[in-house]
Amino acid sequence: MNIHHPDKTRAKARQTVTSTPAAVTTGAIAGSIKIYSSPAGRPDIHVPFREIALDPSSGEAPFRVYDTSGPFTDPDAVVDLNRGLAQPRAPWLAARGLEAIAPRAVKPEDNGNIAPDKLVAPCPAERVVLSGQAGRPVTQLDYARAGIVTEEMVYIAHRENCGRAAMLAGAEERRADGEDFGAAIPAFITPDFVREEVARGRAVIPANVNHPELEPTIIGRNFLVKINANIGNSAVTSSAADEVEKLVWAIRWGADTVMDLSTGRNIHNIRSWIMRNAPVPIGTVPIYQALEKVDGDPAKLDWEVFKDTLIEQAEQGVDYFTIHAGVRLAYVPLTARRVTGIVSRGGSIMARWCLSHHRESFLYERFDEICDIMHRYDVTFSLGDGLRPGSIADANDAAQFAELDTLGELTKVAWDKGCQVMIEGPGHVPMHKIKANMDKQLATCGEAPFYTLGPLTTDIAPGYDHITSAIGAAMIGWFGTAMLCYVTPKEHLGLPNRDDVKTGVITYKIAAHAADLAKGHPAAKLRDDALSRARFAFRWQDQFNLGLDPDTARAFHDETLPKEAHKVAHFCSMCGPKFCSMKITQDLRAEALAMEPSGDDGGRLAGLAEKAREFNEKGASLYLPAE
Amino acid sequence: MNIHHPDKTRAKARQTVTSTPAAVTTGAIAGSIKIYSSPAGRPDIHVPFREIALDPSSGEAPFRVYDTSGPFTDPDAVVDLNRGLAQPRAPWLAARGLEAIAPRAVKPEDNGNIAPDKLVAPCPAERVVLSGQAGRPVTQLDYARAGIVTEEMVYIAHRENCGRAAMLAGAEERRADGEDFGAAIPAFITPDFVREEVARGRAVIPANVNHPELEPTIIGRNFLVKINANIGNSAVTSSAADEVEKLVWAIRWGADTVMDLSTGRNIHNIRSWIMRNAPVPIGTVPIYQALEKVDGDPAKLDWEVFKDTLIEQAEQGVDYFTIHAGVRLAYVPLTARRVTGIVSRGGSIMARWCLSHHRESFLYERFDEICDIMHRYDVTFSLGDGLRPGSIADANDAAQFAELDTLGELTKVAWDKGCQVMIEGPGHVPMHKIKANMDKQLATCGEAPFYTLGPLTTDIAPGYDHITSAIGAAMIGWFGTAMLCYVTPKEHLGLPNRDDVKTGVITYKIAAHAADLAKGHPAAKLRDDALSRARFAFRWQDQFNLGLDPDTARAFHDETLPKEAHKVAHFCSMCGPKFCSMKITQDLRAEALAMEPSGDDGGRLAGLAEKAREFNEKGASLYLPAE
Repeated sequence: MNIHHPDKTRAKARQTVTSTPAAVTTGAIAGSIKIYSSPAGRPDIHVPFREIALDPSSGEAPFRVYDTSGPFTDPDAVVDLNRGLAQPRAPWLAARGLEAIAPRAVKPEDNGNIAPDKLVAPCPAERVVLSGQAGRPVTQLDYARAGIVTEEMVYIAHRENCGRAAMLAGAEERRADGEDFGAAIPAFITPDFVREEVARGRAVIPANVNHPELEPTIIGRNFLVKINANIGNSAVTSSAADEVEKLVWAIRWGADTVMDLSTGRNIHNIRSWIMRNAPVPIGTVPIYQALEKVDGDPAKLDWEVFKDTLIEQAEQGVDYFTIHAGVRLAYVPLTARRVTGIVSRGGSIMARWCLSHHRESFLYERFDEICDIMHRYDVTFSLGDGLRPGSIADANDAAQFAELDTLGELTKVAWDKGCQVMIEGPGHVPMHKIKANMDKQLATCGEAPFYTLGPLTTDIAPGYDHITSAIGAAMIGWFGTAMLCYVTPKEHLGLPNRDDVKTGVITYKIAAHAADLAKGHPAAKLRDDALSRARFAFRWQDQFNLGLDPDTARAFHDETLPKEAHKVAHFCSMCGPKFCSMKITQDLRAEALAMEPSGDDGGRLAGLAEKAREFNEKGASLYLPAE
Repeated sequence: MNIHHPDKTRAKARQTVTSTPAAVTTGAIAGSIKIYSSPAGRPDIHVPFREIALDPSSGEAPFRVYDTSGPFTDPDAVVDLNRGLAQPRAPWLAARGLEAIAPRAVKPEDNGNIAPDKLVAPCPAERVVLSGQAGRPVTQLDYARAGIVTEEMVYIAHRENCGRAAMLAGAEERRADGEDFGAAIPAFITPDFVREEVARGRAVIPANVNHPELEPTIIGRNFLVKINANIGNSAVTSSAADEVEKLVWAIRWGADTVMDLSTGRNIHNIRSWIMRNAPVPIGTVPIYQALEKVDGDPAKLDWEVFKDTLIEQAEQGVDYFTIHAGVRLAYVPLTARRVTGIVSRGGSIMARWCLSHHRESFLYERFDEICDIMHRYDVTFSLGDGLRPGSIADANDAAQFAELDTLGELTKVAWDKGCQVMIEGPGHVPMHKIKANMDKQLATCGEAPFYTLGPLTTDIAPGYDHITSAIGAAMIGWFGTAMLCYVTPKEHLGLPNRDDVKTGVITYKIAAHAADLAKGHPAAKLRDDALSRARFAFRWQDQFNLGLDPDTARAFHDETLPKEAHKVAHFCSMCGPKFCSMKITQDLRAEALAMEPSGDDGGRLAGLAEKAREFNEKGASLYLPAE
């Protein structure tokens, strides 16, 4: 089914007022409309895409792009944060023999024992809490290994194939292009290929059985490179309203997953608003909330409070947990002589605990019990790199790689327990040390998806770390990293605001796409080509709309040439009319192509190409008389 | 000589009002002071640096950085744009047997035949016009080949050694680090090494004999990676005042050279203001002004008007010319089927000329006459890549590489004529095709310095091309590119304003520094380490001031925590006090280092490191009881 709304094509983002907790940004992204498409034979599955209508003069069909923005950009969708989003997965989950259980009772400490008058009301949206039953398949990994293709896999195959059909025409050229460093990216994605990748542990589908609102996505090196945006309040600033809007805002610009790193009060209730209104996988770091429950004293943490927090968040529907089980007692002293010590919050908390009790981490000792809990709800592991380097000086050191070895060991334990696993990576790493990280992770963790923060390629630009890290992110994404965790301009300086979130997301979409291009992803180049054709033809509106941020591109152009007439002008303020190289070559091209009376210029062009080669073979000596 | 102004350390940028054409930004960069240092045995040579004073608690000496900002950031320097800058090179040039010549008379067409009432007055600063004499050495290349070390070479050696002395202590560690892809970066730079690199053509010192105000710099793969900022008005917008301020603003943030790409009226007189107030090498593309002289019709161009323009600009003191002599008639049709044709202004102008006259480019046919003119004033060649790819689709194609072969041929001609040469490079190139550009350029052009625009690694982010290109710039800089031409957020959309220029410069300083780190430049890491130590110690002011943009870093921090007290707080708004990993590990470190009663923790650490290795060798099986 394809629902088109041509009239809404130029719709501007607008504010929808809802009761609580906040109004969120809705409305189509400039120049595009939301469509839904179903895989062959599955009219019941509706995969969202955006379509960008191009100027009739282009003679090109609307350009379809992967869309993470959820119902918020569908003008026909009713957005009511109190009721939560529609539940595409509900019928799929209903058929899987999951058990409806009595939910864990919410405790005062879940919201930081906040005074009743300061308590944020939970999201009123009602959901039955589900849990897997002993001896029956629960996780996407269980089903994949059993040879069963889930609806999530069918959905994902159709979603990842965006553009591939169109590309298959020029497939030979495509195959000749790109360096994939041992990845195995197929020309076309079948549901069974998705299943196979999940079964091998080479890809994950973060999809908690208690997250029916999810639009499934996959994270693995043989699929499109994904990006994550972090949101979350801190004790110092931010609120529930801000966080829900940050979620909606981050996915509007392309975040594939969102991590809620909240550490303040009302964590439980804010999370309920986020989960019920999240069409993307949501990740958390449970140790943060556990620490809040023990008044912020790491030494007071224990297995019981942590276990209780895992269950609390799993029942809410969190899709993946960062677990810092690789921070072992023996590794902590390896960080003592570092320039920046331990820069992971979770890592420093667990290191503190280990030294305070002079014993091994309870996350490490209880790892198989953690697996059992996460398996029950199909919460995916994101094994945290608690000892990642926080500076160029500490990159690739003994502490970092000792932990990575342990993460490889834990990956196999989790796999044995039927859990999906991805591995978190650095951090701050100079360019020449990046590939070693990817190679060691692939070897140590059996190709489990790598999920890196940047890496930042220098420490000297606070205020610009989205850029210092985009360089490293693009490179490590090319080398094989499956998901890139964004870094905003505020990194190291403060909590990102709305603009910082957008800048971080767009910057990381650039890094991920540059990586897809370099890996030789079959369809990645289509968007570059469409935009470049628009640029050369002076289809300004098409150039803006095909870009990652149409609003900013249009605003920059209009700063110097605001008139609508300039949207079709054959120049811009950069060079002006006389010096527009593309204007000049448009005429040139016409001439070159018209050189032959027949109008068929093939022979002539070949002839000149041949002549060019001759020139060079002859050493192209100077003063060769021109014919 | 070292002039310190501790009282000015926190001086804010302020406006100095001067008569014409404009007030420019002067005053110290936040947190740093200007100092001058002389090479051993040459008290007459004063090399500028910036020194950043660190908090006494650090126990660290002021941190010295390379400084491109000229007298404008020296509170003791008198800035009078009408008189122009001081002339450090005047005594050096006076001793070289150059001839004082009668300057070419300024013609109305030099300023676009503008009406007298609209004519911008030329800069009144008086300079004698110099020219080399036949049979005597003129260029830095002539002197280098003759075994003569010029003052410029002594100056540059001292300038490039910034930080190296300090680094030599830890030299072994340094040598073990970095991948230089065949570069030959010495631990310490001697004046004779500079001479040798120039003699081999592997580095250039753009230094017109008519630019006495220049603070010499070097461009070559065995030196610090440099960056260029483009300024210049267009027919559509901008003015003389804007351009001089853009120059001062660009070098304030770190531009090593500046290209004046003006194409409007008053070009000659605007350039006089730029040249007399430029402490950095200035580059131009003479074909732009030549085109203005023939009313913007490429077909009307001829050798005489071009030759006259070369002499006009050489006498004004322009340090390097972009010459598109590689755009040959036979190559033009190779671009006819490109997605974006020819995107170089100069390239499209010459292609237009070649097809209009159906003959070989006069730049190519007259190349040795061009060499003779440029040699007379020591204007360095920047051989333009007129056929560079303007889109991912056109990267590394036949047209681009055919031209590069010709540039290699012309390099040898210019070298035979005693001229310095660098080679311009792309453009738009996906990551996996970048290294081929560097390798082919090194092989084809005999290691002449490569000077690239980006490259942009994707076409899909108009409004963010400083980022799409910073990724490619950092990589190609690592591979061996000597200078990176910046790209601003306005690329493809409009003329950059003041903020765009700053963003472009800072972004490219990041790319250049990331490249220096990855190449294993001896002292590059010192700044990262100093900043990271400040970060870990919560010396916020030091962290801001050691960064590339102290003002922005401070402003971002203060957005959420404005109080002065927070400048010493052991947390920021990103994580808040309880969750500050660095706060937690500072205590940890103290503990780890105090584990041994002796306080000497070396053995203990080694022991634990050993234990960590054991764990892993034993397969680190689960449930290993902690001691």
